[in-house]
Amino acid sequence: MKIERKISIKQYKPSDGFISRYQKLVREVVIPYQYDVLCDKAEGAEKSHVVQNFINAAAALRGEDVGDGFYGMVFQDSDAAKWLEAVGYSLALYPDKKLEETADSLIDIIAEAQDEDGYLNTYFTIKDREKRWKNLLEGHELYCSGHFMEAAVAYFDGTGKDKLLKVMLKNVEHIYRHFITEKHDGYPGHPEVELALLKMYRATGEKKCLELAEHFINVRGVPLTDGGSFYKKEAEQRDWTVWGNNAEDLNYQQSFAPVREQSDAVGHSVRAVYLYTAMADLAAETDDKELLNACERLWSSIADKRMYVTGGIGSTGIGEAFTVDYDLPNDTAYAETCASCGLMFFASRMLEAAPDGRYGDIMEKAFYNTVLAGMQLDGKRFFYVNPLEVIPGVSGIAATHWHDKPQRPEWFACACCPPNVARTISSFGTYAYGEGENTAYCHLYAAGDVEFSFGMKLRCETDFPQGFTVRYTVLEGEGTLAVRVPSWSVNTSVKLETSNDTAAIKQGYAYIEAKAGDVVNLELDGSARFVYSSSKAAENTGCAAVQRGALVYCFEGVDNGGDVLSLILDDSAEISVGDAVPELGGAETLKVKGYRIAPTEGLYTFEKPKKVSEELTAVPYYTWGNRGENQMRVWLPY
Amino acid sequence: MKIERKISIKQYKPSDGFISRYQKLVREVVIPYQYDVLCDKAEGAEKSHVVQNFINAAAALRGEDVGDGFYGMVFQDSDAAKWLEAVGYSLALYPDKKLEETADSLIDIIAEAQDEDGYLNTYFTIKDREKRWKNLLEGHELYCSGHFMEAAVAYFDGTGKDKLLKVMLKNVEHIYRHFITEKHDGYPGHPEVELALLKMYRATGEKKCLELAEHFINVRGVPLTDGGSFYKKEAEQRDWTVWGNNAEDLNYQQSFAPVREQSDAVGHSVRAVYLYTAMADLAAETDDKELLNACERLWSSIADKRMYVTGGIGSTGIGEAFTVDYDLPNDTAYAETCASCGLMFFASRMLEAAPDGRYGDIMEKAFYNTVLAGMQLDGKRFFYVNPLEVIPGVSGIAATHWHDKPQRPEWFACACCPPNVARTISSFGTYAYGEGENTAYCHLYAAGDVEFSFGMKLRCETDFPQGFTVRYTVLEGEGTLAVRVPSWSVNTSVKLETSNDTAAIKQGYAYIEAKAGDVVNLELDGSARFVYSSSKAAENTGCAAVQRGALVYCFEGVDNGGDVLSLILDDSAEISVGDAVPELGGAETLKVKGYRIAPTEGLYTFEKPKKVSEELTAVPYYTWGNRGENQMRVWLPY
Repeated sequence: MKIERKISIKQYKPSDGFISRYQKLVREVVIPYQYDVLCDKAEGAEKSHVVQNFINAAAALRGEDVGDGFYGMVFQDSDAAKWLEAVGYSLALYPDKKLEETADSLIDIIAEAQDEDGYLNTYFTIKDREKRWKNLLEGHELYCSGHFMEAAVAYFDGTGKDKLLKVMLKNVEHIYRHFITEKHDGYPGHPEVELALLKMYRATGEKKCLELAEHFINVRGVPLTDGGSFYKKEAEQRDWTVWGNNAEDLNYQQSFAPVREQSDAVGHSVRAVYLYTAMADLAAETDDKELLNACERLWSSIADKRMYVTGGIGSTGIGEAFTVDYDLPNDTAYAETCASCGLMFFASRMLEAAPDGRYGDIMEKAFYNTVLAGMQLDGKRFFYVNPLEVIPGVSGIAATHWHDKPQRPEWFACACCPPNVARTISSFGTYAYGEGENTAYCHLYAAGDVEFSFGMKLRCETDFPQGFTVRYTVLEGEGTLAVRVPSWSVNTSVKLETSNDTAAIKQGYAYIEAKAGDVVNLELDGSARFVYSSSKAAENTGCAAVQRGALVYCFEGVDNGGDVLSLILDDSAEISVGDAVPELGGAETLKVKGYRIAPTEGLYTFEKPKKVSEELTAVPYYTWGNRGENQMRVWLPY
Repeated sequence: MKIERKISIKQYKPSDGFISRYQKLVREVVIPYQYDVLCDKAEGAEKSHVVQNFINAAAALRGEDVGDGFYGMVFQDSDAAKWLEAVGYSLALYPDKKLEETADSLIDIIAEAQDEDGYLNTYFTIKDREKRWKNLLEGHELYCSGHFMEAAVAYFDGTGKDKLLKVMLKNVEHIYRHFITEKHDGYPGHPEVELALLKMYRATGEKKCLELAEHFINVRGVPLTDGGSFYKKEAEQRDWTVWGNNAEDLNYQQSFAPVREQSDAVGHSVRAVYLYTAMADLAAETDDKELLNACERLWSSIADKRMYVTGGIGSTGIGEAFTVDYDLPNDTAYAETCASCGLMFFASRMLEAAPDGRYGDIMEKAFYNTVLAGMQLDGKRFFYVNPLEVIPGVSGIAATHWHDKPQRPEWFACACCPPNVARTISSFGTYAYGEGENTAYCHLYAAGDVEFSFGMKLRCETDFPQGFTVRYTVLEGEGTLAVRVPSWSVNTSVKLETSNDTAAIKQGYAYIEAKAGDVVNLELDGSARFVYSSSKAAENTGCAAVQRGALVYCFEGVDNGGDVLSLILDDSAEISVGDAVPELGGAETLKVKGYRIAPTEGLYTFEKPKKVSEELTAVPYYTWGNRGENQMRVWLPY
């Protein structure tokens, strides 16, 4: 079944463009700042203590008394892992001796914190070794291991250094012994290790990685022999909790049924897409059609019923979770940045099994809208939550809107999203390009040179997402070029420069045979369009949004007289492209005809509010909130 | 300052009409069913144990071991009190010997449960007398006392029997001794006793009642001498809680500032309006202009910024509370039935200080929409929560919508709303009519005869809210008739039958001198109209609702092809009156021109959804949910 695989990090060399500018930001601002945070040297940031936790864990292993030596969330370790992973990718593309030395020394510190039996987790090592593996519901031990496995592979790919890889192989041995050899029940409360084990398997060939990934996926949601759930039994067997999570809420961690029987995307949205990513990856790896069918159902549940137009997922802050079909509130959305990273991961694995434009479309949507919106344009502040409507005075203040901040915060105690954005941007090339047998897949448009394993070397030139022309030049070799034609591009031309025939398009991909010297030009549709949603999505009835290319736009107060709640779209009028805004990294505005509703007398009135024509200004959603606190709306009434 | 006072229950004798039909329902269905619940004899209802709690408390006072003899909420006693209050009103209007005997015997049981020092509360009497008065934050002791005081006055007014009144005077002595004589700090976590003490004061002339009411109002939100809050100190002094309420959330029980300094309606909405009711009553009673100013600010906060078009208040289920200005989500509204009863109480007290149509308008709006919607048309099921949009599959299911049920439940463990509706309907006359010096105030239109203290006897004939003609005949005496002219009545005629001159209207009231034999005809505007809301209320931008007279309408699936989410109003068209619906108690539908949006391909699309003309059908909001589970919407896009 496997017909396509992501390229590895070093196969893509970015050239100057939209993506490389973001990667530069990650390299020059985000990675150094995050390292300062990990070391508690960043001014204004909340205390992290991550590095000190590892130092203290090592001391504890040596038998020293470190007292109350752990600080932070139970999954605090993962902040270091995600940082190392981003560094691995960044070093692959942009070697940096000093950064590599810093990372090497952090890896040394981490290695010291590994127990002699291979266990690696500072929370339990420092606090209470007796509690290891006794609270899979909340303990995040496998989650942290997973992130270190991802980091180990990325760092090996980026630098060729395998110290962390060896640490994690030893950790795999430990996990294998506990769950397989010693037959302990259980599976991770927060899926992550499954997808990481599959990466480890590919990087090392170690079969135990594959076996463990399969094991955790296969036992998930399967009732114990007494018919009950693992988490409930586990909770009954201990007299402590981390947060008091409800062991009976089986939706929360997607354990309400065996994974092959699941159809609705439910529960904590990051957990969900991390799990589905591994499921899709394993299905492709092992040609497991039943598992792939479940993935397709879960994909459809998200894409067709539970996803915001921005590629955000998770409709509620209560459990940071999916809710039910078509429940997509704009103002109280959770739409966590991490969840949209995870949706990209899921999409990239679905593409491995079937190169279908639907997956690429949403991978692109999630990246250019919610993932990028997660980061301030200066790389210094981050949204965890990405609502589609923000009203200062309500957002972040009302109990129902506490999580929807009108401005990006600096750094959270729970620092999951910033490093997730960093690692996703740094490894963008691996999502953009894939390779099958003699086929070069171009899922996303990323300027740079790609070396495919089958011998083709390809150059991509584009200003996407701001420009709509993509030029592919085959520099060396030959094969099939499979170029995604996005569903938003209503009028598209894709052809060999030497030909007049537009290539045939199959399931969202144009397939063109090409050899060294050939040039393939993709002309995408740069028209801005109104977007409408199904009337089943109650929040958006009578409303439209605006999209141009991959970018969904929004209306901010700063461009619209301070008040976007009184705006009405005239969706019969043309949308025109406005000026590039320097403070928004040169992003272009869109100009839309519309109206402004005059203020009413009182809260309710029989008088139909007067409306006055006004030219409305929209900016790309990913740039919102970069010019101070103000109102923002994606959907406007028409 | 006091220029108007509610009439007492026996001054109004209903004649056959809309109100008397509801009172009949309360008398024949609600009161008997609720009594069965109190005695744990109602099939299908959750266990109540109220009567048994009193029996057990009496036994405990006699020194018997009743073990774990209390069941229910900490405020379970109040269910009996609200039932007795409704019975008192009902007996005043419709004598019923058997019901009176039943109530008498319940009063005997309650009296036995009073401690010899006057304390009356089964929760603490049974569970732990040592904990009395140590948790005002959560304990509801004063709340329950308040409800028994209201019941005592109502039962005395209705039957002339004063046994419960004497019990409650002894209880007042106890409370006075604790809080005034012995100078214990503190005030009720749930306001209620304040308004009840003012009723007791008027019924008995006992000055301690007035003094206590003033005391609790005046100390509320005033920092202790060390600058801290009472609730925080109280919480520090005990090692137990009832529910673990946050003693530092001073908004929740309106104690964030002294009441005279409060301006925004915040916190638990029932607590809020019960407090404001007492504040307004005390302000009128004591001519306290500063307190009245605070009431006017709080009124404006509700009426101009924090109230649904249905007269519902409380925008969130989190704390059953107000949130912030203009945050009025339709689908996740709390809008508790009890809170709209409380808003009527507040309005009726504001009218005491100043007969201004604004108060009468909202008293009417709250009653005919949210209060009545709280009860199934057969009197057997009740909404606690009154959303303005319901979607089966989301409402009552999604974590954000758990409280918004698509169908009225039978009886809750927390049975606050059903008896509140019952007592409000039974005492409707006291809200409808008031009297000042030689002036007969007609705030609401209620068919029947009223005897005013100054000698006028007035007959009112009307089919309101279904009809729009109100005919007042002075049967005896003379004086000024002050008839409210509602703001929704755009074209109104109000005049003596013998005159051609429409009366002058001052602040929403037409004042007409009338004597025995005079007839005053009020012709209200029965046109149905579209309602628009301020664009500051983000939920309703681009939408309109439909109103006719006092009744706000809604669109239900059952009348509109099963799907109201795809409906669009044509607000340029006339609204016509449709048929009366027998299953809805003869309520008339409204017919509105509009469109239905065709289903889209997928969740999001660039294709503007096609729309097809359709005649839309609306029914009065108070009747919704009486024909099975279906979609409902008050606001539709236009």
